[in-house]
Amino acid sequence: MPAYQAPLRDMRFLLYELHGADALAKFPGYEEATRDLLDSVLDAAATFTAEKLLPLNRTGDEEGCRFQDGIVTTPAGFKEAYKEFAAGGWISLAADPAYGGQGLPHVLNLLVEEMICATNLAFGMFPGLSQGAYNALALHGSDEIKQRYLPKLADGSWAGTMCLTEPQCGTDLGLVRTKAEAAPDGSYRVSGGKIFISAGEHDLTENILHLVLARLPDAPSGTRGISLFLVPKVMPDGTRNRVSCGAIEKKMGIHASPTCQINFDGATGWLVGRPNKGMSAMFTMMNAARLGVAVQGLGLAEAAYQGARDYARTRLQGRSLAGARFPDQPADPIIVHPDIRRMLLTMRSRIEASRALAVWIGLAADEAAKHPDAERRAEAEDLLALMTPIAKASFTDLGFESASMAVQIWGGHGYIRDNGMEQLMRDARITQIYEGANGIQGLDLVGRKLGLGTGRLLRRFFHPVAAFIAEAGTDATIAEFTLPLAKVFARLQQVTAQIAQAGLSDPEEAGAAASDYLEFFALVAQAYMWARMARVALAKQSGADGAFYKAKLATARFFFARILPRQAALFQMLGAGKASLMEMEQSFF
Amino acid sequence: MPAYQAPLRDMRFLLYELHGADALAKFPGYEEATRDLLDSVLDAAATFTAEKLLPLNRTGDEEGCRFQDGIVTTPAGFKEAYKEFAAGGWISLAADPAYGGQGLPHVLNLLVEEMICATNLAFGMFPGLSQGAYNALALHGSDEIKQRYLPKLADGSWAGTMCLTEPQCGTDLGLVRTKAEAAPDGSYRVSGGKIFISAGEHDLTENILHLVLARLPDAPSGTRGISLFLVPKVMPDGTRNRVSCGAIEKKMGIHASPTCQINFDGATGWLVGRPNKGMSAMFTMMNAARLGVAVQGLGLAEAAYQGARDYARTRLQGRSLAGARFPDQPADPIIVHPDIRRMLLTMRSRIEASRALAVWIGLAADEAAKHPDAERRAEAEDLLALMTPIAKASFTDLGFESASMAVQIWGGHGYIRDNGMEQLMRDARITQIYEGANGIQGLDLVGRKLGLGTGRLLRRFFHPVAAFIAEAGTDATIAEFTLPLAKVFARLQQVTAQIAQAGLSDPEEAGAAASDYLEFFALVAQAYMWARMARVALAKQSGADGAFYKAKLATARFFFARILPRQAALFQMLGAGKASLMEMEQSFF
Repeated sequence: MPAYQAPLRDMRFLLYELHGADALAKFPGYEEATRDLLDSVLDAAATFTAEKLLPLNRTGDEEGCRFQDGIVTTPAGFKEAYKEFAAGGWISLAADPAYGGQGLPHVLNLLVEEMICATNLAFGMFPGLSQGAYNALALHGSDEIKQRYLPKLADGSWAGTMCLTEPQCGTDLGLVRTKAEAAPDGSYRVSGGKIFISAGEHDLTENILHLVLARLPDAPSGTRGISLFLVPKVMPDGTRNRVSCGAIEKKMGIHASPTCQINFDGATGWLVGRPNKGMSAMFTMMNAARLGVAVQGLGLAEAAYQGARDYARTRLQGRSLAGARFPDQPADPIIVHPDIRRMLLTMRSRIEASRALAVWIGLAADEAAKHPDAERRAEAEDLLALMTPIAKASFTDLGFESASMAVQIWGGHGYIRDNGMEQLMRDARITQIYEGANGIQGLDLVGRKLGLGTGRLLRRFFHPVAAFIAEAGTDATIAEFTLPLAKVFARLQQVTAQIAQAGLSDPEEAGAAASDYLEFFALVAQAYMWARMARVALAKQSGADGAFYKAKLATARFFFARILPRQAALFQMLGAGKASLMEMEQSFF
Repeated sequence: MPAYQAPLRDMRFLLYELHGADALAKFPGYEEATRDLLDSVLDAAATFTAEKLLPLNRTGDEEGCRFQDGIVTTPAGFKEAYKEFAAGGWISLAADPAYGGQGLPHVLNLLVEEMICATNLAFGMFPGLSQGAYNALALHGSDEIKQRYLPKLADGSWAGTMCLTEPQCGTDLGLVRTKAEAAPDGSYRVSGGKIFISAGEHDLTENILHLVLARLPDAPSGTRGISLFLVPKVMPDGTRNRVSCGAIEKKMGIHASPTCQINFDGATGWLVGRPNKGMSAMFTMMNAARLGVAVQGLGLAEAAYQGARDYARTRLQGRSLAGARFPDQPADPIIVHPDIRRMLLTMRSRIEASRALAVWIGLAADEAAKHPDAERRAEAEDLLALMTPIAKASFTDLGFESASMAVQIWGGHGYIRDNGMEQLMRDARITQIYEGANGIQGLDLVGRKLGLGTGRLLRRFFHPVAAFIAEAGTDATIAEFTLPLAKVFARLQQVTAQIAQAGLSDPEEAGAAASDYLEFFALVAQAYMWARMARVALAKQSGADGAFYKAKLATARFFFARILPRQAALFQMLGAGKASLMEMEQSFF
């Protein structure tokens, strides 16, 4: 397994030099979130993930989870690591102090999650799902449920799941068949079979809380008839509930994360939120989960980049095209080759822009939660809602593509399991699928987010970009970044108007544009981050830490020269509309 | 495992309606290669691969090869399938009748290989390597070697390998350390360790012929001091040679193909070709092998497309954005969604163009071998040399990207091993790496092929494209295809001149352009094939088999609307030159 060093310098740059995270400590409830505290948490996370999680990543992949007689055993070392993880308070970082949490900012939690996923994605699934269950119960559970369950989720003694998928229903949750019937004591009896339940059964915790989508008798059909239930594996009286694991899936990757078939056989559960309003409660959980999955992609991308870079620096093969650079060695390191640099910089320039976006979005989550001004909270909520599908799809594509490029740089050695690169690819592949396949993120963006409040969400992105461009207007020193940004931003406005217009009369036009539009939007968002980062770096490149800022500028220049041009292709594709997609008769395929 | 049907209709379209393969039977030596014969071989191959190879693909992946005490055991069923495969004459299809071959056209062999790789890539590796060894010995071996070994390779009773890679040398074969010393009897003693040797040891054949790169004493350093040796596992007298398998690798995919560490411990070998000229002999083998790997990518892409299409037709989920299409069913099949169609057509439009190129290139191989006119043979040889790196890189990228898109269309079910889609991805990933990583193909194109004979190779592509465009000049019915082709072709000429010019004074400029240029070239080649195919289809769409031609036209339109625009991005990237790649200091990465 290649080494991994958490990108702490970059994280601090983004928090304090780019996005002004010092302001967090002024929000009521975040008084403790000073720079000193954030830094010490980041340092501790870097140490913990490198020392405890990274060593279990390869062994966990090879050993995988085992299933026998309904019992799931996690790979060697996972139980001990989980105990330390929970004891270290890592699950409850951003949870409510009223229920055992530490009340720290979401943005901090996101950066910690990046490190967890970079070192051991399969391990990170367990606490990730518990955090998702925590959020859903915190927002929609009754006081009794909150008091009974949240502290157990926060301290890690219990874990959570999201039970949505069934064999006949994945994306289309309106097809859920699992049933729930009211019992005289106010509880419900839940019956049905769920599949693809991550961490649905395991040996890390004494109890597992399943959040289950099911239908009440006489519920309306489709998504308007779905309710959310809390179904614990172990009942409050210590007896076992009628929940069982029937099998675990054999998968491409995340072998150490058990993907379970879970059977509810008249299991006892409690309603969470209102009857038939399960979808909206689930969406709360899902939106937070989507941002979490985005960060998984980012973490894997960083791990892949570091693995590829370290190999490229040490693998001696061939000579520089400009003549031998290290004539005393049998060959030059492959990092001298332009094509290797192209791949490394493709990863790096997208990773750093994506991390800048992650911090921006994470701070929006904190503003939405804690800003004293209600209008600012609402605006931040809008930005978060707009950027979540973009981050989910674009960061996970980045994670997978970076892992694949890392394999390519390692050559045949990248294809060998022991070297760890191909595992990153296999693990990353699921992030493009779960929590809403990336095509669904595109539909969420064009079908829901664009239209909300006649473009209100869009303005949360468009206004700051326009303001930045306007402000930079006269500054020749950053024109190399702001001029192409201004140009591509104008195109984004143009295609947005096109799609909104065409989509009004023909929803298939919006559907045909969805994925390419999301990618276009992500490129513009990355260009915006790069222009802002470059502005900071330009001012500091002659200072004490000059190498860091010079690297930022070189990476920014690569982005504008070699990545942003992708917009030219997407712009043409978006202009082509739906005709070529829909013309083909179904029987012709 | 999803079903697979060999795309026979498309193959016949390409052979007879697009590329005029009927002319083959007029070449001396190909008299038997009539349409009837080609068709019957294609039919038989479709049946054999579907019935015998496809059923072993999933089981072979799960079981993998086993290694114990130097012995490699292939998965259950492989031995029996290999016997039938050899008995059916599939290995010797294009081999010389003088040495047990059937002397059939290369293009036929390519199409059969597509079916083999679509149904079972790991199986196809064994005969593929034998064919490579056959080619190298046929071209460079002495008469004695040819008589002794070629018939055994042709009938499949013996197999072959290519032993190039060592731990310290992959791409850079100049670093080979394996040694060979002359023995008094005219043979050599070969000593050294090779890694990543596909089919280096197995139980399918009674003997294995290793083609080994090694250095003679006092050989010049680098690639000019490498010689090629034939080292059989079993000696002519039936005793075991000093060759052993030390281990097999645990890999991402092609589990049924053993990737071996092979130790030569003073093994007896015979020189193939001249001393210190091993690289050029090996390149003969490698060029044919590169085309073979290209076709692997094509086969995997087709298998992925069919798997994705069949799922998209039957998976019911959600409703058409234009309103329910099948209101009597619980949901519509997902093929109604524009984004699903976008993915299917992205695969299909590139696959059909790539197959058209494969047939064109395959026919060039046949012209190069058998055309009665020496000038035509030389021209065909040039086209083959030019297009081989383009096909290798672009078809294997297509294979992998198609498999990944198929996984995406299958959603979570695509990530499950039993469903077979993720195996296609894992298997496809190696094709982008072996036989020269795809970045090396780009360097071969810009660094070697562009410059040969001051652009002589290029003219073999540029002239027919220019002639086609000129001929179509006045034809309004195909202008929708020929106008964008003409535009992108002009750009190809422009970037070619740019790169040739810049590369003269600075080889790093050529290196920085290599991968993007290859992709640009591949796009133009695909556009050329699509314009030609569309011309044929336009004339026949009202005829008996109208649906086939209408599907061709719809796919062509998709290609020009949604795939060709990628050129706009590549054109900009190529214009940016090397600066942004080389500016970053090595320590900054």
